[in-house]
Amino acid sequence: MDISAVNALPYEDFVNIFGNVVEKCPLVSAAVWTRRPFVSLADLEAAINQFIDALPESGKEGILRCHPDLAGRDLHRGALTRESRQEQAGAGLDALRSDEASRVSRLNEEYKRRFGFPFVVCARAHDKASILRELSERCGNERAAERARGIQEVKKICRLRLQDLVRSDNKL
Amino acid sequence: MDISAVNALPYEDFVNIFGNVVEKCPLVSAAVWTRRPFVSLADLEAAINQFIDALPESGKEGILRCHPDLAGRDLHRGALTRESRQEQAGAGLDALRSDEASRVSRLNEEYKRRFGFPFVVCARAHDKASILRELSERCGNERAAERARGIQEVKKICRLRLQDLVRSDNKL
Repeated sequence: MDISAVNALPYEDFVNIFGNVVEKCPLVSAAVWTRRPFVSLADLEAAINQFIDALPESGKEGILRCHPDLAGRDLHRGALTRESRQEQAGAGLDALRSDEASRVSRLNEEYKRRFGFPFVVCARAHDKASILRELSERCGNERAAERARGIQEVKKICRLRLQDLVRSDNKL
Repeated sequence: MDISAVNALPYEDFVNIFGNVVEKCPLVSAAVWTRRPFVSLADLEAAINQFIDALPESGKEGILRCHPDLAGRDLHRGALTRESRQEQAGAGLDALRSDEASRVSRLNEEYKRRFGFPFVVCARAHDKASILRELSERCGNERAAERARGIQEVKKICRLRLQDLVRSDNKL
């Protein structure tokens, strides 16, 4: 799919295809459709990032709260979105040893209690060990720093999901 | 569920329960969780409305684009959210005569072509005849007026969905 094909999409198809580049936030892609035509994939990505950056802090926290826990309840009950399932499995989070699973669960709860939103990380940029290390380290940050860091990770996830969608035509 | 029970909800439960008061936009309820405690249901509703009002115009259009067509494809293939299905059925939109169905389909397409977002109306405040009349009339409006009007309807739908959730405890 080249960018001219993306620009030609009616909003319904655009939202169907790109609605989950920001996890469970079709509002974001539905909003940036207003900004077409895009000159490139990078331009579409920039429009998404600008939309996110313009949200109030509560809106950024809202985006984070639409994300599942890593190796959490939604993974175990098969309720992840397709994209999240693939990303978590790719980092080995669907096959943790029981001691690792306990540790992730405890740290996820600590993180959520401290910040009021879940730990978000671009799993495809990591492996299991580095995710565990980062989760542990980031529990010690300040809330505003973690909100900003979580949004950085949302944008990394978004970039990779966009690249997947534009590279493979089977979604059209 | 009284407001103190609402205020005591962890964000995950809050988003599970209130995530669809704005159709397919869990981001909105996930964002306003930051604003708790709410002093009343009206206060929660006001927080949602303020969040929507603070969005850029593209974001408001994004909210509208997350709504299904009335009596459209999602209804016919059983893909509506539970709330939308009940609202559309309550107004008789699941049982249109074939001439009515053709007319709605034609007007929906005209509306979307003109505005780039779907016709949104609070179906529970209407019956089939008044929805058809309003759809036809609103096709003649200007885009900015229709965006504002659609968002007014989103807020009416949200108010009724909130009332349903807080009145019935079976969602907790």
